[in-house]
Amino acid sequence: MATPTFRRRHKIHFSECDPAGIVFYPQYFVLFNDLIEAWFDEMLPEGYHGVIGGRRVGMPTVRLEVDFTAVSKMGDEVWLSLDVERLGEKSLTLAWACTGADGVLRMAARQTLVTTSLETHKSIGMPDDIRRAIETAMAEGDQA
Amino acid sequence: MATPTFRRRHKIHFSECDPAGIVFYPQYFVLFNDLIEAWFDEMLPEGYHGVIGGRRVGMPTVRLEVDFTAVSKMGDEVWLSLDVERLGEKSLTLAWACTGADGVLRMAARQTLVTTSLETHKSIGMPDDIRRAIETAMAEGDQA
Amino acid sequence: MATPTFRRRHKIHFSECDPAGIVFYPQYFVLFNDLIEAWFDEMLPEGYHGVIGGRRVGMPTVRLEVDFTAVSKMGDEVWLSLDVERLGEKSLTLAWACTGADGVLRMAARQTLVTTSLETHKSIGMPDDIRRAIETAMAEGDQA
Amino acid sequence: MATPTFRRRHKIHFSECDPAGIVFYPQYFVLFNDLIEAWFDEMLPEGYHGVIGGRRVGMPTVRLEVDFTAVSKMGDEVWLSLDVERLGEKSLTLAWACTGADGVLRMAARQTLVTTSLETHKSIGMPDDIRRAIETAMAEGDQA
Repeated sequence: MATPTFRRRHKIHFSECDPAGIVFYPQYFVLFNDLIEAWFDEMLPEGYHGVIGGRRVGMPTVRLEVDFTAVSKMGDEVWLSLDVERLGEKSLTLAWACTGADGVLRMAARQTLVTTSLETHKSIGMPDDIRRAIETAMAEGDQA
Repeated sequence: MATPTFRRRHKIHFSECDPAGIVFYPQYFVLFNDLIEAWFDEMLPEGYHGVIGGRRVGMPTVRLEVDFTAVSKMGDEVWLSLDVERLGEKSLTLAWACTGADGVLRMAARQTLVTTSLETHKSIGMPDDIRRAIETAMAEGDQA
Repeated sequence: MATPTFRRRHKIHFSECDPAGIVFYPQYFVLFNDLIEAWFDEMLPEGYHGVIGGRRVGMPTVRLEVDFTAVSKMGDEVWLSLDVERLGEKSLTLAWACTGADGVLRMAARQTLVTTSLETHKSIGMPDDIRRAIETAMAEGDQA
Repeated sequence: MATPTFRRRHKIHFSECDPAGIVFYPQYFVLFNDLIEAWFDEMLPEGYHGVIGGRRVGMPTVRLEVDFTAVSKMGDEVWLSLDVERLGEKSLTLAWACTGADGVLRMAARQTLVTTSLETHKSIGMPDDIRRAIETAMAEGDQA
């Protein structure tokens, strides 16, 4: 299996679980938002908060397709990973996976984000330095 | 436009918004989870919490497809609606929409849920009374 | 018992509960933040989002004292209420209560908020119209 | 300054912030719940999830006093720390602090938890192994 572009280990917290003792599914989207943030923090000197808060460039999600294939329970060790599936002029499509330390896929998704101005909430071209940083991350992923 | 099977008015809260001042997208899934809960509370005497907590029947999501078409801002008045797209032996497919009071669609989704035992987290047939309640809700939606 | 300054009925959602099947306590703070928002929406024509987003006046919490006296379970009907305990030059102290429909107190708190500029995050005097609206709400509470 | 009993570094996430660009205060309680969980995971072989999910011993909060002294912004590096202030027969009082990497205190709290049976939600004596593990952690903190 190819190395993903970016991944982090995570232990499922009590705070992420519902009365059934398993991850409350909206929490997966918080976990992956945090993962993307950590990825940007690694790729760009100003970090995700610099892009959002400093430059006022937003990255809202426009499309999501998600399959939940196995439950994650409180205390489970999982890998959260992402790959770049497509890098467009104004958009980015990521493939996510949450996989147990046991190798069982828990959840996989495809997310399309667009770059916007946070002043107008209108689509803008992806800033060049962000594009280059993503291209570099993709190339490194291919070689790994 | 047909009347949806179930809908509720909602005002976007501060607590649902992110540093861009718009709904943090994982919050939409919380809002629709609460909507489904309110729908079950209306359909079944024991309510959603009776199904989950009393009978220990779970309804985890197995598939989601979501399109985000316009942003929702703090203070916006929206309609959250759901329709039954397919009622299977062990699964239920819902179509959601979040529409502004201005008529503009903000977000639409298709969600497939399955009925499970919360003891085993394995799929079970949908209990008959729940199926009948959903069929009644669908028929009423058609007539409305 | 005196009528509170503002209150709302609420049914405890699945999404607010933890693996123990009771309200995950941080969710109480979200519920009361939403309650304060609804109270401002009732008091001021521009609403809470107008104060925060339009005028850029913040109301961060500086002090909280909370007692949790009984658990709230998924599906419980509760009252969320607030009273004004003290209205200062630059601050506001509220007394909250979450009480079951059965009359049993679940949780009570005292919260002190200050008015700030959201540009500088520094304390500012409470705007006159907000002060007058709160004074009116307090007077109406006394008469009720 | 004494070494705290347990601490973790944390970078403030976008997902933890509100439309004012600062930590939405209920999120602090989630962060500290996760911190306590990590502390238990370190102290006890079965971890926090083993205590809650396996033994069905709960640790609900009964009292909280919190002071918010400075804001935390998206991207800020902070330390989340906890100390044991009092270890009782059936309760535990913790002192929390969130301190910026710049040394500035952002928030401090005192939390009292009790041990309960998750079957009855009634108070029970703290299990001996948990008590001993906390005493060991306190003694190590004193020596550090």
